[in-house]
Amino acid sequence: MSESSFLSASCPMPASSKDVVELAHGGGGRLTRELIERLFRPAFATCDEDFTHDGATFDAGGARLAFTTDSYVVRPLFFPGGDIGSLAVNGTVNDLAMCGAEPRYLSVGLVIEEGFALATLQRVVESMRAAALAANVRIVTGDTKVVERGKGDGLYVNTSGVGLIRAPAPVVPQRVRAGDAVILSGDIGRHGIAILAVREGLGFETELASDCAPLAATVLALIDAGVELHCLRDLTRGGLATGLIEIADAANVVIDLAEAAIPVLDPVRGACELLGLDPLYVANEGRFVAFTPADEASRTVDVLRRFDPRATVIGRVEAVHNNRPAVRLNALGGARELDMLSGEQLPRIC
Amino acid sequence: MSESSFLSASCPMPASSKDVVELAHGGGGRLTRELIERLFRPAFATCDEDFTHDGATFDAGGARLAFTTDSYVVRPLFFPGGDIGSLAVNGTVNDLAMCGAEPRYLSVGLVIEEGFALATLQRVVESMRAAALAANVRIVTGDTKVVERGKGDGLYVNTSGVGLIRAPAPVVPQRVRAGDAVILSGDIGRHGIAILAVREGLGFETELASDCAPLAATVLALIDAGVELHCLRDLTRGGLATGLIEIADAANVVIDLAEAAIPVLDPVRGACELLGLDPLYVANEGRFVAFTPADEASRTVDVLRRFDPRATVIGRVEAVHNNRPAVRLNALGGARELDMLSGEQLPRIC
Repeated sequence: MSESSFLSASCPMPASSKDVVELAHGGGGRLTRELIERLFRPAFATCDEDFTHDGATFDAGGARLAFTTDSYVVRPLFFPGGDIGSLAVNGTVNDLAMCGAEPRYLSVGLVIEEGFALATLQRVVESMRAAALAANVRIVTGDTKVVERGKGDGLYVNTSGVGLIRAPAPVVPQRVRAGDAVILSGDIGRHGIAILAVREGLGFETELASDCAPLAATVLALIDAGVELHCLRDLTRGGLATGLIEIADAANVVIDLAEAAIPVLDPVRGACELLGLDPLYVANEGRFVAFTPADEASRTVDVLRRFDPRATVIGRVEAVHNNRPAVRLNALGGARELDMLSGEQLPRIC
Repeated sequence: MSESSFLSASCPMPASSKDVVELAHGGGGRLTRELIERLFRPAFATCDEDFTHDGATFDAGGARLAFTTDSYVVRPLFFPGGDIGSLAVNGTVNDLAMCGAEPRYLSVGLVIEEGFALATLQRVVESMRAAALAANVRIVTGDTKVVERGKGDGLYVNTSGVGLIRAPAPVVPQRVRAGDAVILSGDIGRHGIAILAVREGLGFETELASDCAPLAATVLALIDAGVELHCLRDLTRGGLATGLIEIADAANVVIDLAEAAIPVLDPVRGACELLGLDPLYVANEGRFVAFTPADEASRTVDVLRRFDPRATVIGRVEAVHNNRPAVRLNALGGARELDMLSGEQLPRIC
């Protein structure tokens, strides 16, 4: 698909017969968003679904629930700091946590390529078991499909999750407002660089491990502390920049960031310079941003630092000028606006 | 993997380094079950999970819920009577219904191969929309991943679902008991033969359409009528025979079937003879069996015939002899016992 023809298509599409899915449609950037806005939202949204958020929330039988799904196609299956199994558990646990929910139940759907080693499958399953135990969730149902050799890539994993909403008010982008503090839970960029290092054999893989980790305990600690949470977002595909741009758009605000405040480890910064990557766009699997009223910021940071000493305020929310939402990065040399990437920075990062 | 080495492995495995996943591990027969029993159950079961059932049930926040997942890898994507989109919606709707639940919310996870036509994706999404509308469920959350050319097969779809349990008592294999009637909701074998016909170009595809359909309204009608449902099972991978063998094993009973009572359309029977298939093992996507007390059987059939005039009693449950569960097929020439298939009758049927 050429991007321009897709952009100029009437909404909702039809796509022309020449348009095809590109790797970047799965990258979490602009093309992913177009797919959601032009194809999925017109077809699926019936009332209040917000397909740009990490999960759905609804009342069911008197319970207030969160529900989310993610497929995992990470390459390689094992990487420093995790594997497709721990990633699939933590990723879905974290999407539930970002809804202000306590993760409770997970499903597992496996698509396995014929010829995949059972011993490797066993390692992945054991990793899922350990990750579920650590995150205090139960894997309660599953499904296995096998496809012919050459029709997969070893193993793809889907996990879906159900959680109980614990936050007293909705934790959604639409509640972000001018004056809110933007608080980051730790340093960024480790997952993407760890994957890339082992994939490309760059030689610094021993230094860097993925930040892959469950975030539910951290979020529940914020809720238990009574912090007023306007929005939470874990910083996976597309990294900090993409997550913030989506929130700025959804809330119609400007997010002002202090570049110097954003923690990036030296090896991550060095690898990004070597590879021509911007750490703001690199995927994380154990980091999130919280939006809270400014007068809750220091208390929020205090709670977050019980889990990660690098948690810190990185910016604040301002009202829009000329009705245009934006994310601005303020540095010594001046300010620049962050754009959503249209391409695929790192394919198959999660 | 050689089957014998897997069978002789200590339980729980480790698998030897030579053991690999075969197509039959995804076929729904004996190897699928071994994978569940030897690999998944030891890792995931924490208390009452029943991984041989169609979904999990639990209390959450005061609500009684069912939760299920399935990945769909059917080939080809479009077939007479349905496509991967309607199949993915109906399949998960039906798994929830088999738990005695009213399906409410679905998630969609797509794994798309680079180069897949956007127009085809749009057809699938539109089919999912229509199927969700027909089944009265809402698609509320989703995820898209894209893999490189040659690492997929166009499109794989995962759906997971959440439903509200409506049955007053558990609808599970363990409640099946001697004296129960075995009631089939319609004729069998259409889905598998429709897929195979179009896949192999057998020329009778115009006659036969898949039975792919949502079953929730049928199940809810049974519940509303106050029928005492002991167990429900939709007859997908592995067909009627495999579903009944699993239930006989779980309930430790003998299931006696009257072959002449099982409805099979002539074109299905003819195709099975041509292809050397047994219709009892051919996949369905809109058929199920219900186990009820014998004195509820005629009322159950009455309700089922409002949806399909071919619904009928096909057998009854007996106590085990020598403590060995079994499924027996009684015909004019005598009786034979049905075995679980170890191989893969039809790969990528769903």
